[in-house]
Amino acid sequence: MERHRDQEFEAIRQLLLRMGGLVERMISEAMASLVERDTSRAQAVIRTDSEVDQIEKDLDDACHAVLALQQPTAVDLRFLVAVMKIANDLERMGDSAVNVAQAVEVLNLEPPLKPYIDLPRLAAITQEMVRDALDSFVRRDARAAYEVTKRDDEVDGLYKQLFRELLSYMIEDPRTTTRALHLLLIARNYERVADHATNIGEDVVFYVEGRDIRHLEATDLADIR
Amino acid sequence: MERHRDQEFEAIRQLLLRMGGLVERMISEAMASLVERDTSRAQAVIRTDSEVDQIEKDLDDACHAVLALQQPTAVDLRFLVAVMKIANDLERMGDSAVNVAQAVEVLNLEPPLKPYIDLPRLAAITQEMVRDALDSFVRRDARAAYEVTKRDDEVDGLYKQLFRELLSYMIEDPRTTTRALHLLLIARNYERVADHATNIGEDVVFYVEGRDIRHLEATDLADIR
Repeated sequence: MERHRDQEFEAIRQLLLRMGGLVERMISEAMASLVERDTSRAQAVIRTDSEVDQIEKDLDDACHAVLALQQPTAVDLRFLVAVMKIANDLERMGDSAVNVAQAVEVLNLEPPLKPYIDLPRLAAITQEMVRDALDSFVRRDARAAYEVTKRDDEVDGLYKQLFRELLSYMIEDPRTTTRALHLLLIARNYERVADHATNIGEDVVFYVEGRDIRHLEATDLADIR
Repeated sequence: MERHRDQEFEAIRQLLLRMGGLVERMISEAMASLVERDTSRAQAVIRTDSEVDQIEKDLDDACHAVLALQQPTAVDLRFLVAVMKIANDLERMGDSAVNVAQAVEVLNLEPPLKPYIDLPRLAAITQEMVRDALDSFVRRDARAAYEVTKRDDEVDGLYKQLFRELLSYMIEDPRTTTRALHLLLIARNYERVADHATNIGEDVVFYVEGRDIRHLEATDLADIR
């Protein structure tokens, strides 16, 4: 029974990591399709989404089955709830990557507005946050998970800077408006991906430490190991 | 034991409905603060958010406690997981309402761009979706929950129409760009609220029927009671 249980938990963990790998790739490929002006890569991102959706359902089913058939202990319970929450955040990240890819399809029909510099940086940071959040889950490392949540401010700052820059493009030259707006929506979607990575970090802290750090101030969090 | 359990479930249900009531009010007040040009109402929306955040935590704690201390049956288990998911969607709706209120603070400093007609309609539909989704949860009405999810297309259509309209404002007269952009972000936030209401509808169907309707086609769903 114990071994059977371990196998089930390991299968759930592996499936979640497979989902995380797919979503990470969607996030980076969506940006690559913009920078490289390769619409076929954007289309591949859009196609991947149904697989991500299906894995979320499979994970929900698997977690519900374990919850129903076994009497999980406190930490196992937190693990199962964390998996369902993380899967939900990954699914929404996948949706954001699809939004980006759809905007790229439109943008690639026109000449680039300007060299893309900050946007790829934003995408790279958010992708790193996703990877680090999932790593912290695998390693049950609450401190690393908490570090992920702290990077959200950096992303917000970068987003605000991009917002101002793109807004002034639009005001100064209305011919840039459609493109600038699509770039702005792309930035917004990466900012959302970072929010979801932050949620995962918070879920990992709760899973490992049994402590809810959502909406707390930094002073309350000094003692996370 | 049975009576104690019923009391706990009833307390959870009541707390969720209280959270739903707060969020519904945030959604309508954020729009009212725009239409009535009343920034103090926007600020009240922003202040309400911390209460909503706290209730989500309390609900998570309560559900975890029941999961840990009792061995819930299949339907009770689905109830508890549904509550945690619904609370999460409500919390994000609250964040969207805050985003709207913050944009309103900026917009109310300038003369209105045009009479607001479609935007209040968008807000009203999404608010209705939230209310109907929560009602369907209370009445365990899978058919009503499914009806909520179908309204998402209407919202998407309205959002696309607003997008095109505001984009042409920006292109034709760059002096409108900042305002039009903030209105567009407001519309986008209501479109997200509708997405979350749709998620709640899907969670209610799963809770009531034990069936996962996410990402299915209408033909698969004809037999929902």
